[in-house]
Amino acid sequence: MELWFTEKHNEFAKMSYKINRHLYSGQSEFQRIDIFESFEFGRFLTLDGLMMMTEKDEFAYHEMLVHVPMAINPDIKKVLIVGAGDGGVVREAAKYQGIAKMDMVEIDKQVVDVCKQFLPQTASALDDARLDIFFQDGLRFIRKAEDEYDLIIVDSTDPEGPGEGLFTREFYGNCHRALRENGILVNQLGSPYYATDAAAMLRAYGKLKHVFGIHAAYQAHIPTYPSGHWMFGYCAKAHRPTDISDDWNKLGIDTKYYNTELHRGAFALPTYVKEMLG
Amino acid sequence: MELWFTEKHNEFAKMSYKINRHLYSGQSEFQRIDIFESFEFGRFLTLDGLMMMTEKDEFAYHEMLVHVPMAINPDIKKVLIVGAGDGGVVREAAKYQGIAKMDMVEIDKQVVDVCKQFLPQTASALDDARLDIFFQDGLRFIRKAEDEYDLIIVDSTDPEGPGEGLFTREFYGNCHRALRENGILVNQLGSPYYATDAAAMLRAYGKLKHVFGIHAAYQAHIPTYPSGHWMFGYCAKAHRPTDISDDWNKLGIDTKYYNTELHRGAFALPTYVKEMLG
Repeated sequence: MELWFTEKHNEFAKMSYKINRHLYSGQSEFQRIDIFESFEFGRFLTLDGLMMMTEKDEFAYHEMLVHVPMAINPDIKKVLIVGAGDGGVVREAAKYQGIAKMDMVEIDKQVVDVCKQFLPQTASALDDARLDIFFQDGLRFIRKAEDEYDLIIVDSTDPEGPGEGLFTREFYGNCHRALRENGILVNQLGSPYYATDAAAMLRAYGKLKHVFGIHAAYQAHIPTYPSGHWMFGYCAKAHRPTDISDDWNKLGIDTKYYNTELHRGAFALPTYVKEMLG
Repeated sequence: MELWFTEKHNEFAKMSYKINRHLYSGQSEFQRIDIFESFEFGRFLTLDGLMMMTEKDEFAYHEMLVHVPMAINPDIKKVLIVGAGDGGVVREAAKYQGIAKMDMVEIDKQVVDVCKQFLPQTASALDDARLDIFFQDGLRFIRKAEDEYDLIIVDSTDPEGPGEGLFTREFYGNCHRALRENGILVNQLGSPYYATDAAAMLRAYGKLKHVFGIHAAYQAHIPTYPSGHWMFGYCAKAHRPTDISDDWNKLGIDTKYYNTELHRGAFALPTYVKEMLG
Protein backbone atom coordinates (compact mmCIF):
# COMPACT_ATOMS: atom_id res chain seq x y z
CA MET A 1 0.00 0.00 0.00
CA GLU A 2 1.16 3.53 -0.77
CA LEU A 3 -0.44 6.48 1.03
CA TRP A 4 1.02 9.94 0.42
CA PHE A 5 0.14 13.31 1.93
CA THR A 6 0.92 16.15 -0.46
CA GLU A 7 1.22 19.82 0.35
CA LYS A 8 1.22 22.29 -2.51
CA HIS A 9 3.74 25.05 -1.84
CA ASN A 10 2.10 26.95 -4.64
CA GLU A 11 0.56 26.06 -7.98
CA PHE A 12 3.87 24.82 -9.31
CA ALA A 13 5.63 22.99 -6.47
CA LYS A 14 4.59 20.34 -3.99
CA MET A 15 6.11 18.18 -1.30
CA SER A 16 4.85 14.68 -0.50
CA TYR A 17 5.24 12.56 2.61
CA LYS A 18 4.71 8.80 2.75
CA ILE A 19 2.13 7.98 5.39
CA ASN A 20 1.66 4.90 7.50
CA ARG A 21 -1.63 5.86 9.13
CA HIS A 22 -4.09 8.73 9.17
CA LEU A 23 -4.53 8.89 12.93
CA TYR A 24 -7.10 11.63 13.30
CA SER A 25 -9.35 13.81 11.21
CA GLY A 26 -11.81 16.33 12.63
CA GLN A 27 -13.54 19.57 11.79
CA SER A 28 -13.53 22.18 14.53
CA GLU A 29 -15.46 25.41 14.57
CA PHE A 30 -12.45 27.03 12.90
CA GLN A 31 -10.64 24.56 10.71
CA ARG A 32 -10.03 21.00 9.60
CA ILE A 33 -7.54 19.21 11.88
CA ASP A 34 -5.57 16.11 10.82
CA ILE A 35 -2.85 14.03 12.40
CA PHE A 36 -0.76 11.65 10.28
CA GLU A 37 1.86 9.09 11.17
CA SER A 38 4.64 9.18 8.56
CA PHE A 39 7.70 7.00 8.06
CA GLU A 40 10.35 9.71 7.91
CA PHE A 41 8.93 12.64 9.87
CA GLY A 42 7.20 10.98 12.81
CA ARG A 43 3.70 12.20 13.44
CA PHE A 44 2.58 15.48 11.95
CA LEU A 45 -0.26 17.97 12.29
CA THR A 46 -2.02 19.74 9.46
CA LEU A 47 -4.66 22.49 9.71
CA ASP A 48 -6.85 22.91 6.64
CA GLY A 49 -4.38 20.64 4.87
CA LEU A 50 -1.35 22.84 5.57
CA MET A 51 1.69 21.44 7.37
CA MET A 52 1.92 22.86 10.88
CA MET A 53 4.67 20.70 12.38
CA THR A 54 6.33 17.31 12.16
CA GLU A 55 7.94 15.47 15.04
CA LYS A 56 11.18 15.28 13.02
CA ASP A 57 11.91 18.99 12.80
CA GLU A 58 9.51 20.91 15.05
CA PHE A 59 12.40 21.37 17.48
CA ALA A 60 14.06 23.84 15.11
CA TYR A 61 10.97 26.01 14.81
CA HIS A 62 10.01 25.99 18.48
CA GLU A 63 13.55 26.51 19.76
CA MET A 64 14.08 29.50 17.49
CA LEU A 65 10.87 31.14 18.68
CA VAL A 66 11.67 30.71 22.38
CA HIS A 67 15.42 30.69 22.97
CA VAL A 68 16.27 33.74 20.83
CA PRO A 69 14.34 36.13 23.12
CA MET A 70 15.20 34.18 26.29
CA ALA A 71 18.94 34.37 25.59
CA ILE A 72 18.65 38.13 25.19
CA ASN A 73 16.81 38.55 28.47
CA PRO A 74 16.95 35.49 30.76
CA ASP A 75 15.10 37.57 33.40
CA ILE A 76 11.84 37.23 31.50
CA LYS A 77 9.15 36.36 34.05
CA LYS A 78 5.79 36.56 32.34
CA VAL A 79 5.17 35.32 28.81
CA LEU A 80 2.18 35.57 26.50
CA ILE A 81 1.98 32.86 23.85
CA VAL A 82 -0.45 33.43 21.00
CA GLY A 83 -1.55 30.40 19.00
CA ALA A 84 0.86 27.51 19.57
CA GLY A 85 -1.87 24.96 20.22
CA ASP A 86 0.51 22.06 19.60
CA GLY A 87 2.37 22.94 22.78
CA GLY A 88 5.86 23.18 21.29
CA VAL A 89 6.46 26.77 22.39
CA VAL A 90 5.26 25.99 25.92
CA ARG A 91 7.57 22.97 26.08
CA GLU A 92 10.60 25.11 25.26
CA ALA A 93 9.55 28.02 27.52
CA ALA A 94 8.88 25.63 30.41
CA LYS A 95 12.61 24.80 30.45
CA TYR A 96 13.25 28.19 32.12
CA GLN A 97 12.83 28.12 35.87
CA GLY A 98 12.85 31.91 35.82
CA ILE A 99 9.57 32.06 33.93
CA ALA A 100 6.90 32.44 36.59
CA LYS A 101 3.79 32.68 34.43
CA MET A 102 2.74 31.72 30.91
CA ASP A 103 -0.56 32.81 29.37
CA MET A 104 -1.45 31.04 26.16
CA VAL A 105 -4.25 32.25 23.91
CA GLU A 106 -5.35 29.70 21.35
CA ILE A 107 -8.56 30.17 19.42
CA ASP A 108 -9.19 26.47 18.83
CA LYS A 109 -9.52 24.20 21.88
CA GLN A 110 -9.88 21.19 19.63
CA VAL A 111 -6.31 21.68 18.36
CA VAL A 112 -4.98 21.54 21.92
CA ASP A 113 -7.06 18.47 22.78
CA VAL A 114 -5.98 16.62 19.64
CA CYS A 115 -2.29 17.49 20.14
CA LYS A 116 -2.41 16.35 23.77
CA GLN A 117 -3.79 13.02 22.61
CA PHE A 118 -1.68 12.40 19.51
CA LEU A 119 1.49 14.51 19.81
CA PRO A 120 2.85 13.89 23.32
CA GLN A 121 6.41 14.81 22.28
CA THR A 122 5.30 18.33 21.44
CA ALA A 123 2.43 18.78 23.89
CA SER A 124 4.44 17.50 26.85
CA ALA A 125 4.33 20.68 28.94
CA LEU A 126 0.72 21.74 28.37
CA ASP A 127 -0.06 20.69 31.96
CA ASP A 128 2.69 22.92 33.40
CA ALA A 129 1.43 24.58 36.59
CA ARG A 130 2.64 27.99 35.42
CA LEU A 131 0.45 27.86 32.30
CA ASP A 132 -3.08 29.24 31.81
CA ILE A 133 -4.71 28.56 28.48
CA PHE A 134 -7.39 30.95 27.22
CA PHE A 135 -9.45 29.64 24.36
CA GLN A 136 -10.10 32.96 22.71
CA ASP A 137 -9.20 35.06 19.70
CA GLY A 138 -5.67 36.42 20.31
CA LEU A 139 -6.60 39.71 18.65
CA ARG A 140 -9.32 40.31 21.26
CA PHE A 141 -7.37 38.97 24.24
CA ILE A 142 -4.49 41.36 23.71
CA ARG A 143 -6.75 44.44 23.72
CA LYS A 144 -7.17 44.16 27.50
CA ALA A 145 -3.49 43.81 28.36
CA GLU A 146 -1.23 46.70 29.34
CA ASP A 147 2.35 46.76 30.63
CA GLU A 148 2.00 43.13 31.64
CA TYR A 149 4.31 40.81 29.68
CA ASP A 150 8.07 40.57 29.29
CA LEU A 151 7.75 38.50 26.15
CA ILE A 152 5.06 37.81 23.55
CA ILE A 153 5.54 34.86 21.22
CA VAL A 154 3.20 34.71 18.24
CA ASP A 155 3.12 31.17 16.87
CA SER A 156 0.31 31.55 14.40
CA THR A 157 -0.77 29.94 11.16
CA ASP A 158 0.37 31.75 8.05
CA PRO A 159 -0.25 35.42 7.22
CA GLU A 160 -2.69 34.29 4.56
CA GLY A 161 -5.34 32.22 6.35
CA PRO A 162 -7.12 31.92 9.67
CA GLY A 163 -4.25 33.58 11.56
CA GLU A 164 -4.54 36.73 9.43
CA GLY A 165 -5.61 38.99 12.32
CA LEU A 166 -2.33 38.20 14.07
CA PHE A 167 -0.43 39.99 11.31
CA THR A 168 -2.31 43.32 11.51
CA ARG A 169 -1.02 46.68 12.68
CA GLU A 170 -3.76 46.79 15.32
CA PHE A 171 -2.55 43.52 16.80
CA TYR A 172 1.09 44.59 16.84
CA GLY A 173 0.15 47.93 18.39
CA ASN A 174 -1.75 46.16 21.15
CA CYS A 175 1.19 43.82 21.71
CA HIS A 176 3.43 46.86 22.12
CA ARG A 177 1.11 48.22 24.82
CA ALA A 178 0.89 44.83 26.51
CA LEU A 179 4.67 44.60 26.84
CA ARG A 180 6.66 45.96 29.76
CA GLU A 181 9.46 48.45 29.19
CA ASN A 182 12.01 45.74 28.35
CA GLY A 183 9.49 43.73 26.36
CA ILE A 184 10.27 41.57 23.35
CA LEU A 185 7.95 40.18 20.68
CA VAL A 186 8.84 37.37 18.28
CA ASN A 187 6.64 35.92 15.58
CA GLN A 188 6.82 33.62 12.60
CA LEU A 189 6.93 35.44 9.29
CA GLY A 190 6.85 32.64 6.73
CA SER A 191 9.27 32.24 3.86
CA PRO A 192 11.04 34.68 1.53
CA TYR A 193 11.25 32.14 -1.31
CA TYR A 194 7.94 31.83 -3.12
CA ALA A 195 6.52 35.16 -4.30
CA THR A 196 3.18 34.90 -2.47
CA ASP A 197 4.88 33.98 0.82
CA ALA A 198 7.46 36.72 0.40
CA ALA A 199 4.75 39.32 -0.18
CA ALA A 200 2.91 38.23 2.99
CA MET A 201 6.17 38.33 4.96
CA LEU A 202 6.89 41.85 3.73
CA ARG A 203 3.42 43.09 4.63
CA ALA A 204 3.75 41.71 8.15
CA TYR A 205 7.28 42.98 8.63
CA GLY A 206 6.35 46.42 7.31
CA LYS A 207 3.70 46.70 10.03
CA LEU A 208 6.06 45.52 12.77
CA LYS A 209 8.56 48.17 11.71
CA HIS A 210 5.98 50.92 12.24
CA VAL A 211 5.19 49.78 15.77
CA PHE A 212 8.54 48.80 17.31
CA GLY A 213 11.68 50.89 17.53
CA ILE A 214 13.92 47.85 17.43
CA HIS A 215 13.08 45.32 14.76
CA ALA A 216 14.92 42.64 12.83
CA ALA A 217 14.30 39.38 11.06
CA TYR A 218 16.04 36.06 11.53
CA GLN A 219 16.03 32.74 9.76
CA ALA A 220 16.23 29.00 10.28
CA HIS A 221 16.25 25.76 8.31
CA ILE A 222 12.90 24.01 8.70
CA PRO A 223 12.73 21.41 5.93
CA THR A 224 9.01 20.58 6.24
CA TYR A 225 7.88 24.18 5.70
CA PRO A 226 7.60 25.42 2.11
CA SER A 227 11.13 26.02 0.76
CA GLY A 228 12.69 25.09 4.12
CA HIS A 229 13.80 28.71 4.51
CA TRP A 230 11.80 30.15 7.37
CA MET A 231 11.79 33.66 8.79
CA PHE A 232 10.95 35.09 12.19
CA GLY A 233 10.36 38.65 13.31
CA TYR A 234 12.10 40.11 16.35
CA CYS A 235 10.84 43.33 17.92
CA ALA A 236 11.78 44.97 21.18
CA LYS A 237 11.45 48.13 23.21
CA ALA A 238 15.02 48.08 24.53
CA HIS A 239 17.02 44.93 23.71
CA ARG A 240 19.02 44.64 20.48
CA PRO A 241 18.51 41.28 18.75
CA THR A 242 22.05 39.99 19.15
CA ASP A 243 22.78 41.35 22.64
CA ILE A 244 22.95 37.88 24.10
CA SER A 245 23.23 37.60 27.86
CA ASP A 246 26.35 35.88 29.19
CA ASP A 247 24.07 34.09 31.62
CA TRP A 248 22.24 32.04 29.04
CA ASN A 249 24.89 29.38 28.62
CA LYS A 250 25.04 28.94 32.41
CA LEU A 251 21.37 27.98 32.51
CA GLY A 252 22.13 24.59 30.97
CA ILE A 253 19.08 24.65 28.69
CA ASP A 254 19.07 21.54 26.52
CA THR A 255 18.67 22.32 22.81
CA LYS A 256 19.00 20.47 19.51
CA TYR A 257 18.96 23.48 17.21
CA TYR A 258 19.60 26.68 19.14
CA ASN A 259 22.96 27.86 20.41
CA THR A 260 24.24 31.38 20.97
CA GLU A 261 26.58 31.37 17.95
CA LEU A 262 23.71 30.24 15.75
CA HIS A 263 21.58 32.99 17.31
CA ARG A 264 23.98 35.65 15.98
CA GLY A 265 24.27 33.86 12.65
CA ALA A 266 20.50 33.62 12.22
CA PHE A 267 20.23 37.42 11.94
CA ALA A 268 22.75 37.48 9.06
CA LEU A 269 20.43 37.20 6.07
CA PRO A 270 21.08 36.52 2.41
CA THR A 271 21.49 39.67 0.36
CA TYR A 272 18.23 39.23 -1.54
CA VAL A 273 16.28 38.86 1.73
CA LYS A 274 17.99 41.91 3.27
CA GLU A 275 17.12 43.94 0.19
CA MET A 276 13.51 42.72 0.29
CA LEU A 277 13.13 43.75 3.93
CA GLY A 278 14.69 47.13 3.22
CA MET B 1 -2.01 19.41 -19.40
CA GLU B 2 -0.16 18.60 -16.19
CA LEU B 3 3.47 17.50 -16.37
CA TRP B 4 5.35 17.06 -13.10
CA PHE B 5 8.99 16.18 -12.41
CA THR B 6 9.38 14.40 -9.10
CA GLU B 7 12.57 13.87 -7.12
CA LYS B 8 12.53 11.36 -4.31
CA HIS B 9 14.53 12.69 -1.36
CA ASN B 10 14.40 9.21 0.03
CA GLU B 11 11.87 6.39 0.10
CA PHE B 12 9.48 8.48 2.18
CA ALA B 13 9.64 12.05 0.89
CA LYS B 14 9.51 13.62 -2.54
CA MET B 15 9.37 17.06 -4.13
CA SER B 16 7.54 17.76 -7.39
CA TYR B 17 7.94 20.58 -9.88
CA LYS B 18 5.36 21.53 -12.49
CA ILE B 19 6.93 21.46 -15.92
CA ASN B 20 6.12 23.38 -19.06
CA ARG B 21 8.50 21.59 -21.43
CA HIS B 22 11.09 18.84 -21.37
CA LEU B 23 13.75 20.68 -23.35
CA TYR B 24 16.47 18.07 -23.59
CA SER B 25 17.14 14.47 -22.77
CA GLY B 26 20.35 12.64 -23.57
CA GLN B 27 22.53 9.80 -22.39
CA SER B 28 26.23 10.55 -22.18
CA GLU B 29 29.01 8.07 -21.55
CA PHE B 30 28.57 8.76 -17.82
CA GLN B 31 24.98 9.66 -17.05
CA ARG B 32 21.52 10.63 -18.22
CA ILE B 33 21.23 14.39 -18.74
CA ASP B 34 17.89 16.26 -18.78
CA ILE B 35 16.87 19.89 -18.99
CA PHE B 36 13.36 20.97 -18.01
CA GLU B 37 11.56 24.27 -18.24
CA SER B 38 9.44 24.77 -15.12
CA PHE B 39 6.93 27.46 -14.18
CA GLU B 40 8.35 28.40 -10.79
CA PHE B 41 12.03 27.54 -10.93
CA GLY B 42 13.03 28.55 -14.44
CA ARG B 43 15.00 25.92 -16.31
CA PHE B 44 16.66 23.14 -14.40
CA LEU B 45 19.25 20.42 -14.95
CA THR B 46 19.04 16.86 -13.68
CA LEU B 47 21.71 14.16 -13.90
CA ASP B 48 20.42 10.60 -13.59
CA GLY B 49 17.13 12.13 -12.47
CA LEU B 50 18.66 14.04 -9.55
CA MET B 51 18.24 17.80 -9.26
CA MET B 52 21.53 19.56 -9.96
CA MET B 53 20.39 23.19 -10.16
CA THR B 54 17.45 25.41 -10.99
CA GLU B 55 17.67 28.90 -12.41
CA LYS B 56 15.62 30.17 -9.45
CA ASP B 57 18.08 29.34 -6.69
CA GLU B 58 21.40 28.25 -8.19
CA PHE B 59 22.78 31.65 -7.21
CA ALA B 60 22.76 30.66 -3.53
CA TYR B 61 24.74 27.48 -4.13
CA HIS B 62 27.30 28.94 -6.53
CA GLU B 63 27.85 32.12 -4.55
CA MET B 64 28.47 30.18 -1.35
CA LEU B 65 31.06 27.97 -3.05
CA VAL B 66 32.99 30.88 -4.58
CA HIS B 67 32.67 33.98 -2.41
CA VAL B 68 33.38 32.35 0.95
CA PRO B 69 36.98 31.47 0.01
CA MET B 70 37.45 34.61 -2.11
CA ALA B 71 36.44 36.89 0.78
CA ILE B 72 39.01 35.20 2.98
CA ASN B 73 41.78 35.63 0.44
CA PRO B 74 41.00 38.09 -2.35
CA ASP B 75 44.59 37.58 -3.60
CA ILE B 76 43.71 34.19 -5.01
CA LYS B 77 45.19 34.01 -8.50
CA LYS B 78 44.86 30.44 -9.74
CA VAL B 79 41.76 28.34 -9.18
CA LEU B 80 40.99 24.69 -9.86
CA ILE B 81 37.31 23.89 -10.31
CA VAL B 82 36.32 20.23 -10.18
CA GLY B 83 32.99 19.26 -11.71
CA ALA B 84 30.78 22.32 -12.11
CA GLY B 85 29.82 21.54 -15.71
CA ASP B 86 26.84 23.91 -15.57
CA GLY B 87 29.24 26.86 -15.37
CA GLY B 88 27.79 28.47 -12.22
CA VAL B 89 31.05 28.35 -10.28
CA VAL B 90 32.98 29.81 -13.20
CA ARG B 91 30.43 32.62 -13.57
CA GLU B 92 30.93 33.65 -9.94
CA ALA B 93 34.73 33.24 -10.01
CA ALA B 94 34.99 35.24 -13.23
CA LYS B 95 33.69 38.29 -11.31
CA TYR B 96 37.16 38.61 -9.70
CA GLN B 97 39.62 40.53 -11.83
CA GLY B 98 42.38 39.25 -9.56
CA ILE B 99 41.88 35.68 -10.70
CA ALA B 100 44.39 35.13 -13.49
CA LYS B 101 43.71 31.50 -14.35
CA MET B 102 40.93 28.97 -13.89
CA ASP B 103 41.33 25.28 -14.65
CA MET B 104 38.11 23.32 -14.74
CA VAL B 105 38.05 19.52 -14.76
CA GLU B 106 34.71 18.08 -15.75
CA ILE B 107 34.40 14.42 -16.62
CA ASP B 108 31.41 14.85 -18.92
CA LYS B 109 31.78 17.14 -21.94
CA GLN B 110 28.16 16.57 -22.86
CA VAL B 111 27.03 18.28 -19.63
CA VAL B 112 29.00 21.39 -20.57
CA ASP B 113 27.68 21.40 -24.13
CA VAL B 114 24.07 20.96 -23.00
CA CYS B 115 24.36 23.68 -20.33
CA LYS B 116 25.89 26.11 -22.82
CA GLN B 117 22.94 25.51 -25.12
CA PHE B 118 20.07 25.46 -22.61
CA LEU B 119 21.24 27.29 -19.46
CA PRO B 120 22.81 30.55 -20.65
CA GLN B 121 22.15 32.25 -17.27
CA THR B 122 24.41 29.77 -15.53
CA ALA B 123 26.88 28.94 -18.30
CA SER B 124 27.48 32.60 -19.17
CA ALA B 125 31.20 32.67 -18.38
CA LEU B 126 32.28 29.33 -19.83
CA ASP B 127 33.98 31.22 -22.68
CA ASP B 128 36.05 33.35 -20.29
CA ALA B 129 39.58 33.74 -21.68
CA ARG B 130 41.11 32.80 -18.31
CA LEU B 131 39.40 29.40 -18.32
CA ASP B 132 40.74 26.06 -19.56
CA ILE B 133 38.38 23.12 -19.41
CA PHE B 134 39.82 19.62 -19.14
CA PHE B 135 37.38 16.83 -19.89
CA GLN B 136 38.87 14.28 -17.55
CA ASP B 137 38.31 12.49 -14.29
CA GLY B 138 39.05 14.97 -11.48
CA LEU B 139 40.58 12.22 -9.37
CA ARG B 140 43.21 11.54 -12.05
CA PHE B 141 43.80 15.16 -13.00
CA ILE B 142 44.69 16.20 -9.46
CA ARG B 143 47.39 13.52 -9.12
CA LYS B 144 49.71 15.53 -11.38
CA ALA B 145 49.34 18.86 -9.60
CA GLU B 146 51.68 20.13 -6.92
CA ASP B 147 51.90 23.51 -5.18
CA GLU B 148 49.95 25.05 -8.02
CA TYR B 149 46.55 26.36 -6.95
CA ASP B 150 45.43 28.99 -4.45
CA LEU B 151 41.91 27.61 -4.36
CA ILE B 152 40.21 24.33 -5.24
CA ILE B 153 36.42 24.30 -5.56
CA VAL B 154 34.82 20.87 -5.72
CA ASP B 155 31.33 21.18 -7.18
CA SER B 156 30.52 17.54 -7.59
CA THR B 157 27.43 15.38 -7.69
CA ASP B 158 26.52 13.77 -4.37
CA PRO B 159 28.82 11.60 -2.23
CA GLU B 160 26.71 8.61 -3.20
CA GLY B 161 26.83 8.41 -6.99
CA PRO B 162 29.08 9.17 -9.93
CA GLY B 163 31.03 11.82 -7.98
CA GLU B 164 32.01 9.30 -5.30
CA GLY B 165 35.74 9.47 -6.07
CA LEU B 166 35.70 13.18 -5.26
CA PHE B 167 34.89 12.35 -1.64
CA THR B 168 37.81 9.99 -1.00
CA ARG B 169 40.81 10.49 1.23
CA GLU B 170 43.10 9.99 -1.73
CA PHE B 171 41.43 12.84 -3.60
CA TYR B 172 41.59 15.19 -0.61
CA GLY B 173 45.23 14.30 -0.02
CA ASN B 174 46.07 15.11 -3.62
CA CYS B 175 44.16 18.38 -3.36
CA HIS B 176 46.27 19.26 -0.33
CA ARG B 177 49.44 18.69 -2.32
CA ALA B 178 48.07 20.64 -5.29
CA LEU B 179 47.43 23.71 -3.11
CA ARG B 180 49.96 26.44 -2.44
CA GLU B 181 50.91 27.32 1.13
CA ASN B 182 47.91 29.61 1.61
CA GLY B 183 45.60 27.27 -0.25
CA ILE B 184 41.89 26.79 0.44
CA LEU B 185 39.56 23.97 -0.61
CA VAL B 186 35.76 24.16 -0.52
CA ASN B 187 33.34 21.43 -1.51
CA GLN B 188 29.66 20.59 -1.30
CA LEU B 189 28.85 18.12 1.45
CA GLY B 190 25.13 17.49 0.98
CA SER B 191 22.52 17.71 3.71
CA PRO B 192 22.48 16.83 7.41
CA TYR B 193 18.73 16.19 7.42
CA TYR B 194 17.93 12.77 5.97
CA ALA B 195 19.87 9.92 7.56
CA THR B 196 21.50 8.63 4.35
CA ASP B 197 22.64 12.12 3.34
CA ALA B 198 23.92 12.86 6.82
CA ALA B 199 25.96 9.65 6.86
CA ALA B 200 27.55 10.52 3.52
CA MET B 201 28.30 14.04 4.75
CA LEU B 202 29.98 12.69 7.85
CA ARG B 203 32.11 10.24 5.91
CA ALA B 204 33.33 13.01 3.61
CA TYR B 205 33.92 15.48 6.43
CA GLY B 206 35.76 12.88 8.47
CA LYS B 207 38.23 12.42 5.60
CA LEU B 208 38.71 16.16 5.12
CA LYS B 209 39.53 16.48 8.81
CA HIS B 210 42.36 13.98 8.48
CA VAL B 211 43.96 15.85 5.61
CA PHE B 212 43.62 19.54 6.47
CA GLY B 213 44.74 21.28 9.64
CA ILE B 214 42.01 23.89 9.35
CA HIS B 215 38.56 22.55 8.60
CA ALA B 216 35.00 23.68 9.16
CA ALA B 217 31.55 23.27 7.68
CA TYR B 218 29.08 25.94 6.64
CA GLN B 219 25.49 25.99 5.53
CA ALA B 220 23.03 27.71 3.22
CA HIS B 221 19.35 27.64 2.29
CA ILE B 222 18.93 25.99 -1.10
CA PRO B 223 15.25 25.09 -1.41
CA THR B 224 15.52 22.82 -4.46
CA TYR B 225 18.04 20.47 -2.82
CA PRO B 226 16.67 17.75 -0.54
CA SER B 227 15.59 19.34 2.76
CA GLY B 228 16.79 22.78 1.59
CA HIS B 229 19.52 22.61 4.25
CA TRP B 230 22.81 22.35 2.42
CA MET B 231 26.31 22.00 3.80
CA PHE B 232 29.73 22.90 2.46
CA GLY B 233 33.19 21.94 3.62
CA TYR B 234 35.93 24.52 4.15
CA CYS B 235 39.58 23.43 4.46
CA ALA B 236 42.71 25.49 4.46
CA LYS B 237 46.42 25.39 5.11
CA ALA B 238 46.58 28.81 6.78
CA HIS B 239 43.37 30.86 6.63
CA ARG B 240 40.68 30.51 9.32
CA PRO B 241 37.17 30.25 7.84
CA THR B 242 35.82 33.52 9.20
CA ASP B 243 38.96 35.67 8.79
CA ILE B 244 37.32 37.80 6.16
CA SER B 245 39.50 40.32 4.36
CA ASP B 246 38.53 43.96 4.74
CA ASP B 247 39.21 44.32 1.05
CA TRP B 248 36.35 42.14 -0.12
CA ASN B 249 33.62 44.73 0.25
CA LYS B 250 35.74 47.21 -1.74
CA LEU B 251 35.77 44.89 -4.74
CA GLY B 252 32.13 45.67 -5.48
CA ILE B 253 31.25 42.06 -6.33
CA ASP B 254 27.54 41.83 -7.12
CA THR B 255 25.79 39.08 -5.14
CA LYS B 256 22.22 38.01 -4.43
CA TYR B 257 22.95 35.62 -1.56
CA TYR B 258 26.45 36.16 -0.21
CA ASN B 259 27.52 38.99 2.06
CA THR B 260 30.25 39.08 4.69
CA GLU B 261 27.84 39.03 7.66
CA LEU B 262 26.11 36.01 6.18
CA HIS B 263 29.56 34.44 5.66
CA ARG B 264 30.21 34.55 9.42
CA GLY B 265 26.67 33.39 10.17
CA ALA B 266 26.91 30.43 7.79
CA PHE B 267 29.58 28.82 9.96
CA ALA B 268 27.29 28.95 13.03
CA LEU B 269 25.57 25.58 12.79
CA PRO B 270 22.54 24.14 14.59
CA THR B 271 23.48 22.20 17.71
CA TYR B 272 22.52 18.82 16.23
CA VAL B 273 24.74 19.43 13.19
CA LYS B 274 27.67 20.58 15.33
CA GLU B 275 27.32 17.45 17.45
CA MET B 276 27.15 15.26 14.34
CA LEU B 277 30.35 16.77 12.95
CA GLY B 278 32.10 16.39 16.28
